[in-house]
Amino acid sequence: MSQDWLTALGQYQTRITQLLKDQVESLPSLAPVLRDAMGYALLMGGKRVRPAMLYTTGQMLGVKLSDLDAAAMALECIHCYSLVHDDLPAMDNDDLRRGQPTCHIAFDEASAILAGDALQTLAFSLLCDYPLSAACEPQRVKLVSALASASGYLGMCGGQALDMQATDKLIDIGQLEQLHQCKTGALLQASVKMACILADIPASEQQQLAIFAENIGLAFQVQDDILDVTGDTQTLGKRQGSDQTLNKSTYPALLGLDGAKALAQQLYQQALQALQPLPYNTDLLRSFAGYIVDRNH
Amino acid sequence: MSQDWLTALGQYQTRITQLLKDQVESLPSLAPVLRDAMGYALLMGGKRVRPAMLYTTGQMLGVKLSDLDAAAMALECIHCYSLVHDDLPAMDNDDLRRGQPTCHIAFDEASAILAGDALQTLAFSLLCDYPLSAACEPQRVKLVSALASASGYLGMCGGQALDMQATDKLIDIGQLEQLHQCKTGALLQASVKMACILADIPASEQQQLAIFAENIGLAFQVQDDILDVTGDTQTLGKRQGSDQTLNKSTYPALLGLDGAKALAQQLYQQALQALQPLPYNTDLLRSFAGYIVDRNH
Repeated sequence: MSQDWLTALGQYQTRITQLLKDQVESLPSLAPVLRDAMGYALLMGGKRVRPAMLYTTGQMLGVKLSDLDAAAMALECIHCYSLVHDDLPAMDNDDLRRGQPTCHIAFDEASAILAGDALQTLAFSLLCDYPLSAACEPQRVKLVSALASASGYLGMCGGQALDMQATDKLIDIGQLEQLHQCKTGALLQASVKMACILADIPASEQQQLAIFAENIGLAFQVQDDILDVTGDTQTLGKRQGSDQTLNKSTYPALLGLDGAKALAQQLYQQALQALQPLPYNTDLLRSFAGYIVDRNH
Repeated sequence: MSQDWLTALGQYQTRITQLLKDQVESLPSLAPVLRDAMGYALLMGGKRVRPAMLYTTGQMLGVKLSDLDAAAMALECIHCYSLVHDDLPAMDNDDLRRGQPTCHIAFDEASAILAGDALQTLAFSLLCDYPLSAACEPQRVKLVSALASASGYLGMCGGQALDMQATDKLIDIGQLEQLHQCKTGALLQASVKMACILADIPASEQQQLAIFAENIGLAFQVQDDILDVTGDTQTLGKRQGSDQTLNKSTYPALLGLDGAKALAQQLYQQALQALQPLPYNTDLLRSFAGYIVDRNH
């Protein structure tokens, strides 16, 4: 992995964490427990993959960092709310996330449900109200539309429903791919799409970047499944083997560990190919793709 | 109550129910259980107060019905999602709503959580993607902003958090008012505000309508508290006395039943006064206000 990329990733992670911290601190003290639960969910760490994907793509396309901040925060609000709700006892019943107690353990179930709800709302507020330069201002509706479409019934929520239904059942590789394209792929694809919207690039270029995002989004999930088998709880920050415990279909279960690793590589190569026709310096985005399939947590 | 108003209310209720039915039926069959749970939450009946408030205000201001549909659906999606989540075992633990099993009873908790989440997202999708005439098209961002601000930490979610915290505690009349202004008032006020946004009326007129909405929104909740004491389970469609069972602070508990009725009347009068300076035919909106304080369910 290139040093440039690691430097950029670190900068993006620091930036988004500070922005989210500022947001939480700017909330009036109306309902302190809810505010604390929202802050806990947003600031308990994490790789900030979606903001990093947005910043990397946006900067490649010439968008100012400050014009990417609203979308970066909105993406992370949606991602963090989904983790809080997915961890609930009625869903995956996870007590550990990023090495810390999950939100409903640290607080209580009602606060975790409400914090998730309010974080989803905050995402859309930020896309409407956070400052943008005059050039990006007309893009707000498209940003909201892209994020909502990736988060709802045909995106993340639908994917989580498919995941719940697939528990304790045998599903085939096509169904598993559909599940992941919805559950995690849609939001990762939205990270790239929102950068394209802000840059207002031609449809043909958006299409190439959408292919990149689709492949790398799926590769991300295949690698996640691999790490659930090969990683350890401390590095992962969540229970190793939790997919197996919950009896979920995974790529290693369906393809074997070597088959899953081969698939991750294949998706990675397809992602890189999609970048080739683009008239931009794709170095950092290529490094980003490498990070997705090489990461150990 | 005037016959004109009852006719209009019936038409609005029929219209919004059909629109929501069309939305649910247009969802692809990706995740059928989730789709069914969303449809159950949206179509189990209800008074459709928020859409009716929006349609009544909007028509008074000269907005076409078809330009109000997106906002009407979005408001009802947010309201229905909040009922589904509020009814969950970790929250109010209600098994009966509108005379039928609540969503997590009819389905399961995971589906109810996800249906609520996806309904919130659908609200914002509709505001971005549902057709609007050219005159209203530029107002989409303001609509999303108004709805998000009414639904989130400083609105409905914050109000529900205050409500959870106030259970089993004695709170004073000021705290009770703040709780309700957030929990139900904010969304009722948004119903009026979104009509104003679509009509693009002057700020001074918006301000008068905001005062109307604030008073009638609070009157709505006072009447709700009164009905929890004086109504019966069959007419209400939810368990009579459920506030008392949950040991919640209510207006009748703090002011006595007569005091609560006097407050509802006072708020109603203040709402009517706010309409006086307006250069519109306010007849239906006045009837709407009367319906809010006279209803028996």
